Amino acid sequence: MNFPATQGREAPHAPAPDAEDALAALMDLLRDDLEACNTAIIARMQSPVQLIPQLAAHLIAAGGKRLRPLLTLAAARLCGYSGERHVGLAACVEFIHTATLLHDDVVDESDLRRGLASANAVFGNKASVLVGDFLFARAFELMVADGSPEVLRILSSASATIAEGEVLQLVIQNDTTSTEQQYLEVIEGKTAALFAAATRVGAVVADRGLEEAEALHSYGHNLGIAFQLVDDALDYSAEQERLGKTVGDDFREGKITLPVLLAFARGDEDEQVFWRRVLEERQQNEHDLQHALTLMRHHRTLEDTVARARHYGDQACRALDAFPHSPYRKALLDVVEFCIARAH
Amino acid sequence: MNFPATQGREAPHAPAPDAEDALAALMDLLRDDLEACNTAIIARMQSPVQLIPQLAAHLIAAGGKRLRPLLTLAAARLCGYSGERHVGLAACVEFIHTATLLHDDVVDESDLRRGLASANAVFGNKASVLVGDFLFARAFELMVADGSPEVLRILSSASATIAEGEVLQLVIQNDTTSTEQQYLEVIEGKTAALFAAATRVGAVVADRGLEEAEALHSYGHNLGIAFQLVDDALDYSAEQERLGKTVGDDFREGKITLPVLLAFARGDEDEQVFWRRVLEERQQNEHDLQHALTLMRHHRTLEDTVARARHYGDQACRALDAFPHSPYRKALLDVVEFCIARAH
Repeated sequence: MNFPATQGREAPHAPAPDAEDALAALMDLLRDDLEACNTAIIARMQSPVQLIPQLAAHLIAAGGKRLRPLLTLAAARLCGYSGERHVGLAACVEFIHTATLLHDDVVDESDLRRGLASANAVFGNKASVLVGDFLFARAFELMVADGSPEVLRILSSASATIAEGEVLQLVIQNDTTSTEQQYLEVIEGKTAALFAAATRVGAVVADRGLEEAEALHSYGHNLGIAFQLVDDALDYSAEQERLGKTVGDDFREGKITLPVLLAFARGDEDEQVFWRRVLEERQQNEHDLQHALTLMRHHRTLEDTVARARHYGDQACRALDAFPHSPYRKALLDVVEFCIARAH
Repeated sequence: MNFPATQGREAPHAPAPDAEDALAALMDLLRDDLEACNTAIIARMQSPVQLIPQLAAHLIAAGGKRLRPLLTLAAARLCGYSGERHVGLAACVEFIHTATLLHDDVVDESDLRRGLASANAVFGNKASVLVGDFLFARAFELMVADGSPEVLRILSSASATIAEGEVLQLVIQNDTTSTEQQYLEVIEGKTAALFAAATRVGAVVADRGLEEAEALHSYGHNLGIAFQLVDDALDYSAEQERLGKTVGDDFREGKITLPVLLAFARGDEDEQVFWRRVLEERQQNEHDLQHALTLMRHHRTLEDTVARARHYGDQACRALDAFPHSPYRKALLDVVEFCIARAH
């Protein structure tokens, strides 16, 4: 089998300057830890089967923003941890995330027929699945190497929850009768579960009690929901375009996200007919995305989605009240701002 | 998203009567253990997301032959184990196997264009991937629940090796310059690694020493290679047709297996041109499979593949010399015969 030369994946969200600063401050604070984590990531993605590092590098080494591993590193330090175990666990968290990205790239025949582009176009479905499986297995090896039963329990359970969230997303896709509750369950699974596990293990390696572990779990969980809400708003935002990403990917896939659910619920009969045609029957013509954006603007659904994100972000911040002031606490609070400010 | 009603997957290989008896004897010997394992499997594949048990049942509950979990159960009993831990680990092994089957079902656009059928036609690529991920995560939860660091190490490392084998298979696919050594690496990864881990953990739960663990590892490893060699021969065998399965699936996919590698190596120039056209360029017409079968018969490549399997089967049997005579030892020896006799 011949694989074409590697093409660059779309750039990660380039946030607004202020937001960027918040993340940069965290990266600076954790510079040594992050470097050790990057070294662990590169070392553990190697394999004699060349396609594996080749495809993994496509996503992993190209240097995403490493948000999830940064959370593990920061949470451990916030808890006063001074060892090295958090580095391997941060790498583990990044591997789980990357495996999920690769599996998200897998497309169905129906999507191919509709001509949806995908990062997997370069390597194909099979390669995305199998290299994702390898990274997932590597993530488990990293947890096992850590050896803590509690860490293993948290991360293996998060992995099952992520998969459940992804399957639920598939099930409610193209169905405008989906409820906000179902949408929330999807993002709690596919996004918030890993954020929560990533921060919780920080307290566990530091050998802190249940209260700190639950506070960091709550921080990660609420931050994850806020992050995904903003992502789902960005998909319909001109901001997205300014950042070099395509607007309307979710629309073309018929993905059910909050901006759409709100527009459907607030729409009149004609509008609901429109949404059913484009999302359920997926009969879309070239002017439909523009019309969808107009309806969202009219019903202010993007603003309301971001407002909802801000609500979860506030809860994330409040969860950190359990910890005394420190540069790590401040940096984690700033990360919340970073996640939400991307929308502006 | 609407999912059509579940269709039956193709029946598992129905072996010749004698071979069937060997497996039936093992199932009978382990009746209570197997029942407990089936109960664990059903319990652990549940999820509030209905598509998960629905799709998993498609493969898991329909009752395959449960060969891999039977190996774990038998290995533990062979080692004199009298507890219950082997039941959860047997379920774990079956989950890893089923996740792999689901991910094998994922097809590329090129395969769709060529009209290759797949079990995933019912649910689609995405569902196969995501439900496979769920089962994989469940497998890790089962290992974590067992708690033995050694068991965790064996099974997480096997998972990484399986993924490497699957990726290597993809890489050498459609390439007639692949070597027998590469083919062996593929089947060691995709099949033998799980057989070896399945039997090795039997010795570990029984708290036996390294010698028994390595003997059972060797048994599983060699049995796995023998099993896959027979599978690859069966794909081109009239026996396969008699058993209600399609002949030539590997051929249509351009999969490089030993029967093909031997035919290519032994073929004259015209024959090599033929193999390159059908497997590399995948230009196949309706008479090509028949011609391929004629060439294989002429060069006796199916017989030689099965002879190779018998060689590995003998090594599997010899590995059990480390254990005293017992009904479990006899049953495990019979399983070797079962795996090979499928070819006749």
